[in-house]
Amino acid sequence: MRILGIDPGLQTTGFGVIDAEGPRLAYVASGTIKTSAVAAGDLPARLKILFDGVREVVARYQPQCAAVEIVFVNVNPQSTLLLGQARGAALTSLVSCDLPVSEYTALQMKKAVVGHGHAKKEQVQAMVKRLLNLPAEPGKDAADALGLAVMHAHARVSFDAMSRSTTLQRRQHAQFRGGRTY
Amino acid sequence: MRILGIDPGLQTTGFGVIDAEGPRLAYVASGTIKTSAVAAGDLPARLKILFDGVREVVARYQPQCAAVEIVFVNVNPQSTLLLGQARGAALTSLVSCDLPVSEYTALQMKKAVVGHGHAKKEQVQAMVKRLLNLPAEPGKDAADALGLAVMHAHARVSFDAMSRSTTLQRRQHAQFRGGRTY
Repeated sequence: MRILGIDPGLQTTGFGVIDAEGPRLAYVASGTIKTSAVAAGDLPARLKILFDGVREVVARYQPQCAAVEIVFVNVNPQSTLLLGQARGAALTSLVSCDLPVSEYTALQMKKAVVGHGHAKKEQVQAMVKRLLNLPAEPGKDAADALGLAVMHAHARVSFDAMSRSTTLQRRQHAQFRGGRTY
Repeated sequence: MRILGIDPGLQTTGFGVIDAEGPRLAYVASGTIKTSAVAAGDLPARLKILFDGVREVVARYQPQCAAVEIVFVNVNPQSTLLLGQARGAALTSLVSCDLPVSEYTALQMKKAVVGHGHAKKEQVQAMVKRLLNLPAEPGKDAADALGLAVMHAHARVSFDAMSRSTTLQRRQHAQFRGGRTY
């Protein structure tokens, strides 16, 4: 399963692609999409760069699913609104490629990657480097995006284990009742 | 010039299409895109409906430009974030169709359509009906979207008049200096 992690932002959107086979993870690619080529006030043009950039990443690396960071309300409501619009463009780009999208908070990602939810950016970078056996630490935005992909790989493994045990219980239950296994 | 007005919202997005020839306006179509078919919590799926819906309107009516309402910070920051994401999806949809997008506040639109910025929704509906010579009042979201298209048509007429007078001044200035007209 190839997973694309996306850390959305209006100025810089991080992306990270990994392959996950059960608990084994392999780095594929990572980087950032920057919208600084156009005027800061031209929101439609910035969203277009973001939308096209995410689609280009999807076309190049062909992920099967995506994990996107859930953004939070900022102290500055105007920043919240801008970040919301950037996240809307990133999500739209993914669903326009028919990718299933899962959403995780930064807290969940840090817990999965570093071990506690209040880890610093540097700790995420160091752990992503270790988990994916990278020669150097990725940039902050790319590390967050790779962390989201790792988080999603972990969530899938747990989910699979859970659904296996549920199926087993169901089977036992069905057999107990003398019904067909399903 | 065919203009598409968009009043973005996560639940309901209004659209309105008009033809503008100088000061003459003609109604083409209007309606709403609703995302209620999917679970309220499934944001990616709701944004996909919005994105696809706007693209469908563009494909059907072939507008040459779009006018989108600038949304504002809500008292509830979580609502601001959701509305931001919906607006991001709507803008992304328009720019993905290579439409030039202009942005106006509700205040600007009401001033252009009703005459003052604090007009009620019902006044916008009544004025849009009158301006576009409609047999009945459009729904509130569609009326706002048509109002935005009317606003953009007015802005274009003023802009054209302004640029004509600027060209004239430039010409006079150039002649005064004995230079070539440009």
